[in-house]
This record gives sequence, C-alpha cells and structure tokens, in this order.
Amino acid sequence: MNVTRNSRMSPLDPTAAEPFYRQIYDRFRSAIANGLLKPGDRIPSARALTKELGLARGTIETAYSLLAAEGYIQARGQAGTIVTPGLTPQIAKASAAPRTERVAVASDFRPDSILPFQMGLPALDAFPRKIWARLGARCMRSMQPSDMVHPSVFGLYGLRAAIATYLQVSRGIDCSASQVFVTSGYRHTLELIAHALFKPGDRVWIENPGYPPTRDLLGLMHMTSVPVPVDADGMIVSEGLKLAPRARAAVVTPGHQSPLCVSLSLPRRLALLDWAARNQGWIIEDDYDGEYRYVSRPLPALKSLDRDGRVLYAGTFSKVLLPALRLAYLVVPQEQVQRFEDVSRTFVGGSPQLTQAIVTAFITEGHFARHIQRMRKLYAERREATAAGLESVLHKHIRIDPQPGGMHLILRLKGRRSDRRLVARMWDEGLYAEALTDWMVGSSGASALLLNFTNISTQRGAETLGNRILKLV
Amino acid sequence: MNVTRNSRMSPLDPTAAEPFYRQIYDRFRSAIANGLLKPGDRIPSARALTKELGLARGTIETAYSLLAAEGYIQARGQAGTIVTPGLTPQIAKASAAPRTERVAVASDFRPDSILPFQMGLPALDAFPRKIWARLGARCMRSMQPSDMVHPSVFGLYGLRAAIATYLQVSRGIDCSASQVFVTSGYRHTLELIAHALFKPGDRVWIENPGYPPTRDLLGLMHMTSVPVPVDADGMIVSEGLKLAPRARAAVVTPGHQSPLCVSLSLPRRLALLDWAARNQGWIIEDDYDGEYRYVSRPLPALKSLDRDGRVLYAGTFSKVLLPALRLAYLVVPQEQVQRFEDVSRTFVGGSPQLTQAIVTAFITEGHFARHIQRMRKLYAERREATAAGLESVLHKHIRIDPQPGGMHLILRLKGRRSDRRLVARMWDEGLYAEALTDWMVGSSGASALLLNFTNISTQRGAETLGNRILKLV
Repeated sequence: MNVTRNSRMSPLDPTAAEPFYRQIYDRFRSAIANGLLKPGDRIPSARALTKELGLARGTIETAYSLLAAEGYIQARGQAGTIVTPGLTPQIAKASAAPRTERVAVASDFRPDSILPFQMGLPALDAFPRKIWARLGARCMRSMQPSDMVHPSVFGLYGLRAAIATYLQVSRGIDCSASQVFVTSGYRHTLELIAHALFKPGDRVWIENPGYPPTRDLLGLMHMTSVPVPVDADGMIVSEGLKLAPRARAAVVTPGHQSPLCVSLSLPRRLALLDWAARNQGWIIEDDYDGEYRYVSRPLPALKSLDRDGRVLYAGTFSKVLLPALRLAYLVVPQEQVQRFEDVSRTFVGGSPQLTQAIVTAFITEGHFARHIQRMRKLYAERREATAAGLESVLHKHIRIDPQPGGMHLILRLKGRRSDRRLVARMWDEGLYAEALTDWMVGSSGASALLLNFTNISTQRGAETLGNRILKLV
Repeated sequence: MNVTRNSRMSPLDPTAAEPFYRQIYDRFRSAIANGLLKPGDRIPSARALTKELGLARGTIETAYSLLAAEGYIQARGQAGTIVTPGLTPQIAKASAAPRTERVAVASDFRPDSILPFQMGLPALDAFPRKIWARLGARCMRSMQPSDMVHPSVFGLYGLRAAIATYLQVSRGIDCSASQVFVTSGYRHTLELIAHALFKPGDRVWIENPGYPPTRDLLGLMHMTSVPVPVDADGMIVSEGLKLAPRARAAVVTPGHQSPLCVSLSLPRRLALLDWAARNQGWIIEDDYDGEYRYVSRPLPALKSLDRDGRVLYAGTFSKVLLPALRLAYLVVPQEQVQRFEDVSRTFVGGSPQLTQAIVTAFITEGHFARHIQRMRKLYAERREATAAGLESVLHKHIRIDPQPGGMHLILRLKGRRSDRRLVARMWDEGLYAEALTDWMVGSSGASALLLNFTNISTQRGAETLGNRILKLV
C-alpha cells in the first residue's frame, strides 16, 4: 500500500524515466485498481502531498488534473478531493493515460483548470459568453420539428452558406455553399478526404516539422507519409518533388506553418499548384488559424489561387471560437462535390443541430467578424506581452522566433539543451509545453519549446511563468 | 424555359423512370442553374402548381421540401416562396440530390415539414422541450473554462458513467464508464470498430434483410459483407456458419431485428456467442431501439450474456431522444479498452461539450428514465392506433406483421405487388415509406412497406393516411 489518506506516501524515484507527475498518477491509479482506495475515500490535498513529498505544487496538480479528467477523482470544494463514487476497480485497471507522448496526452487530457501555455486554445477569458448563451437559449426555445430530425450530413445549409460568405470576404476563396462540408474537426476532415480521394498505399507529402496527428491518421488509414522539410519560406516543394514526385497529395499549412509559423512563399505556392495540376495531385490546405496575423493583413488562402480545382481547404472553429464546439469545415473543388456527398452519405453522422444553429446565428448576426477583429488585436498584445516577459527572464537561455501570426511562441533553446527533457520538467511543474523535436520526423538538432500565449494577459504574468521555467532550464 | 413564375410549366412525363416529385425538383434546379430563375425570384405556390399540373398536392410539397432542404428555395410566409437570395448558379449545377435510392435520400433529406411515416424518428410532439431548453440554458450559463477546451475524445466522463449505469439497470449490461465510448451515431460507431478490429478484406456477417448503411459502410472500408438470412428467430446462425465460418465479425440487431422486428432467440444467441468465442470473432450488437418493446419487458441485451468479451454493444440517443443530437455510444469488452482508446486518439474529434452536458444532466436528473417510460406507453398506443387505422382501410391489400416492439410497422403486400413501385407512388403523394426489397440482398419475393408510426397519434389519422395509400395500391 503506497497511497491512502492516512498513510504516508513513499518517496518518488528521481532516476525513473517517468516524470514525477506521472509517477504520482500511476500510484493513485493502482491504489484504486487494487481497491486500496475505494470510491468516496478522501485523498490528501494537493497542498498536503506537496509538503509530504517535497515536490513542486504544480507536479501534484498536474497529476490530480489528469486523475480528475479521467474520472478517478473529484474535487468537492471544502469537503476535499475524493475517489469518484461509483467507480469500479476495473476502470483504473483498463484506462491508463498515454505514457510519454505529449501529443497523445494533449488529445484527451482535459484538465479541470487550464495549464499555462496550453496549446491549441483561444483566449478563454475573452470568449463572448453572454452573447453565446443568449443565442443558444434562443435556438433551444425556438426548436422546430425540422430542428429535431437528422441534420443534413453535409452540414446545416445556413451554416454552409455563412461559411462560404465568410471565406469569400476574409480569405479570398470563391466557393458556393454546396462546396462546404461541415465536419467535427481536423481529423474528421482529413479522414473524409482520405475516404473520398486516397487509396491504401498512396504517398502523401507532409511538412517536417508538422502537426503530428496528420502522420498518425494517414498511417492508420494505410497511407505512406513523406516528410518534406520546411524552411523560412514554408515547405520546400523542390524537396517533395525529389522525394516523391508522384505522391497523391500534399498536406500543408500555408498561412502559418504548423508549428514554425512561417508563410509559404508565393513562388512555392505556385510550384505546389503546378505540381498538383500536372500530377493530378491534391493539396490539402490546413488553415487552422489563418485569421491570426498581427503585423499585416492576413494573407489570402492558397485556395484562392487554385485555378485547376486541386486544393481542398480545411478550416475550423476551434481556434476562432472554442475547441469544445467540435465544428470544422472542408471546402472541396466544384468537380469533387458529388464524390464528397456520396462519401458523406456513407460515413458521416452529421454534427448536432444545436451547435450548428448557434454558430450560424453567431456568424450571420455579425458577432463572428467582430470577435475575430477583437481577438486579432488582443492576441497581438498578448503575444508581445508574453514574449517580452519571457525574454526578460530567460534571454540567456532562449531566443524567441519572430513570427507574424499564430497562437503560440517558439522558444529556441540556446546551447545543446534537450527540449524534450525541459518539457518533461515543465509538466512536472504544472506548466504545459510541447517540444519541437516531437513534431519532427528524424533529428535536425533543432530544440525549441512551443508555448501558447493566448491565455496570458500581462507581461508581469509572463515574467512569473518565466521564472518558474528558469529554475528548470 | 420550363419553370418561371409567370410562364406555365410543361406537363410532366408519366412514363419517365423518375417519380413526379423528382421531375419537378430537377426542373427547378436546372432553371436556377441556367439562370432562368434568379435569387429572390418568386416561384409558384404549391397550391397553384398543384392545380396547374393536375398532380397531388403532396407531390409538389415533396419537391419543394427537397428544394428547401438543400437551400434552393425559401418559404417567406405571406410573401410566398422565393429562390434563395445570394444563391449562385453553380450551387444548382453541383449539388444534385440522390436519385432513386431511398436510403441515400433519407440520410440527407431534411424536410421543413416531417413527412407522414418518416422512418427513424421518435415522437417529435412528445419530446420534453421545456425541460430540455431549461437544462440547455443552465449548461450554457454555467460554462467553465474546462467546458470550453477540447472535450475528451472518449466522451465526457460524466456521460460515460451515466450511460454505464443506465445500461446496467435497463439492459443488464455490466460495464464500467471506461468501456463506454461516445460517438456521433451508428455509422461513426461502426467505423470506429472497423478501424480498431478489422483489416481490409475481412468478411463480416450481416443480416438479410438488414439496415442498408451497414453494408455500404463496410464496403467502402474494404470489408466483404456476407448476407445471412433472417427468419422468425432472427439471424440463422447455422447459415452464417455454412457461408463463412471464419468471418471476422457479425453485425446483428438481436432486440428487434432491423427491419423485421423479430428477436434473436436464446439458442441462436448462444450459438452466436459460441461461434465468436471459438473463432475469435466479434459480435456487433446494434441495439438501436432496444428500449421499445410493448407486450412484455424489454429483453436483456445480448451483451449481457457475453462471458468471453466478444460483444461490442452499439446504442444511440437518436431513437430515445432526438436524431438531431448526433450522440451514440459503443461499449467495448474490458480487454479492448486500450485499443479503442488508441484508435479514438487518432481518429476521433469528440462530440460537442454542450450536447453531451445536456444529455448527462437529462439522464442523471431522472428525466431520461421517465421519458422512456412515457414513450413506451405512447408508442404502444400509437402502434395499435396506426395498425388499426391502416388495417381497416387497407385489409384487402396488406397484412400487418405482429411485432412485439420497434418504431415501425411492416405492411406485407398481398398478391404480387411491387413494394418499390408503391413506395415511389407514395413519395409522389408526399408520404414517406421504405420498401423491404431495398433492405435485402438478392430477391426473396418478400414485398412489404416499412412505415414509422411514432408520429401518428390517432386511429382516425391513420385511416386518412390509409385512404391516401389506398388510391395508389
């Protein structure tokens, strides 16, 4: 017995491969699985355990957040934290959180409190909750029979039309509502494309470094990813041509390369379009946060240059509204509409009517455009404040990439420091970070932290966080 | 020019393969595509066109519903019906509604008014809208940061736990929350299973007759469906053993076979479980409306007999709450939890937090159990009223199968009438129906209509509808 309310916890192993937060998580999970901790049992407060183990408070909080997110424990305010009532020991046996892959953790880790620097999140404090709740209440009150039946598997027509109009105005994309397919997120979008256009064994260019789930998903769908290096002008198209000239498709993030935030240069855009037209290849433009460029106007989408109908455009509401919505969209070339309709009829369950209706009202009543304008200004300020705060504390150890947009900073580590090791230590301190190395195939020697800045509101706050990092460098 | 506001429409072709509603739909679509009808143009009222063409009002209304659902036209109350403002001609060119496949139509056909007998719908008038709107408003007002970020890709823990408890009590299934995965519908559930457990080329037993999307989806995922005949005791397992003893899986609807509504007998359940255990095969139990049995208590699920961990249980909220929710779930054997977690991390975007939170509150606060009780009573009444009404008018031409449960009636056609032809005529009259023949692989001579009864509230109403069918038989 190594975890109960009344007995002391044995010391953790500082030489173990696993970070401290993970060791604590594992101990609680096995105590629950073994029945040593029973549903309803109180567990030590984070404060008490911090003292007892002589660790940082953040380490304990990270472990508790993970346990809470997976349903093992519940905070009960004054009454303390308890093992979830009704929990059966099998749960703890079966459902182990992923081990060391940060990206996998990010995809199902749902903390009760948001960790500083957590990637992929918009500014949660700036979300227009009141307007949102008002529109939602209105949608629910006015529900008609036609709102209760199966929504179209292509998406609500009103939403598709609103997206088409928005893309025309803000991203220079000329498309009709029928070319827009509503999905539940980027993975779903990519899966739909693969079902519609790819065959098992097809080769697909991906950016290196690049968003890791793309590679994972293509792999599980029996495609072969071909990592193509990225430099200051985006994906090096000529390298792709050397590595796999007859590839079926290329997945790119031309607006802000993910994660390096560079833009794909115009000559490369044209080279990519030329390759696609000659080769009958497909370009998947993942414009995950194309709205957010701070030093000049947002660039038009690559899709706006698509004369041959080779570009599939993937957008999402996760970054401009909320990830919790699970709403994204795909714009397909006119000639492919029929094919995507057929595949959607077979594969797609459709998104809930309610969230689609609320977002439609949010866009058509002008809140969406205003929100993007406000966020663009706010993120420019927060980016500057966070960069200044971190730089003032960490300048000996890091260099921050100058980027024109996006939602995260890239902190290059000076010397030969391992980004992975530093990230593990930061997690132990309750600080979120991702290591650039984890976004790469093969090794390039590049070592950097990826830190989201959208939820850090002042330079002072960033300095405080910087000081916490400083102790770990 | 064959459709404008002021010119007369040329007569339809009664010898064409396409039903009248479809011919009208096509004419309007091409008039819009050709620019003959422009955005904002008024189109004739359904009443006027009915008169002009000498067709049933229902034919015109079906066509207009389809045009409206796809965004071509908009009803403007007193101002009449107009071509959607802002519509570009390309839309009409690209997005043709599916042709003659009823099932494909059903999946994206979203009428403004619900057609009589429309399949797959619960009683929309009996849905507790006020409670629902109240819970929804509360969820939106109390939104916390943790409700704004990516929801767990496995589903909200609270919802998974509520589902596990419900299944234990009402379906006899002993499972923990970690075995429950929330999905966006049956197709998504089946796709997740295929990703986790099947390989391209695997053979899968399906019921014949059976729900057509199962076959379509397996086909697109490169599995081979093996149709196994169904008799009064459900799938004839011994036939499956003859046809493909080494199949990878069997998809069955043991509660009410879809569409015949028979129950899988206990000896067959045991034979199926035995086959799965010996063969390391998987049984996918699609319990799409297991709650609805009227003459005795609902049978426990097949999953409740699963001693060897071979049964995957698929449930849905579409039939007991609303299809518009897009919420369903999958229960996997304890030993497969890890595998499904891995696949979910790669493939699943997760369902919106809001709909999950509302359903969780709806279940845990007792509304769900009450609603099912009420619906069980209501559907027993509506089933009886609809059967009596149709029988009194149509008894010379049809025989209604006695069924213990489900949400639709099976009207066997006497003589050698074609169910497909009658269904096409009914669609022309604005009456929904599906033909049993369309649910079968190969021909068996069985000819029957499938008619949903949950939205027909009186015997008198059913008689009126019966008289409309009588003219078409």
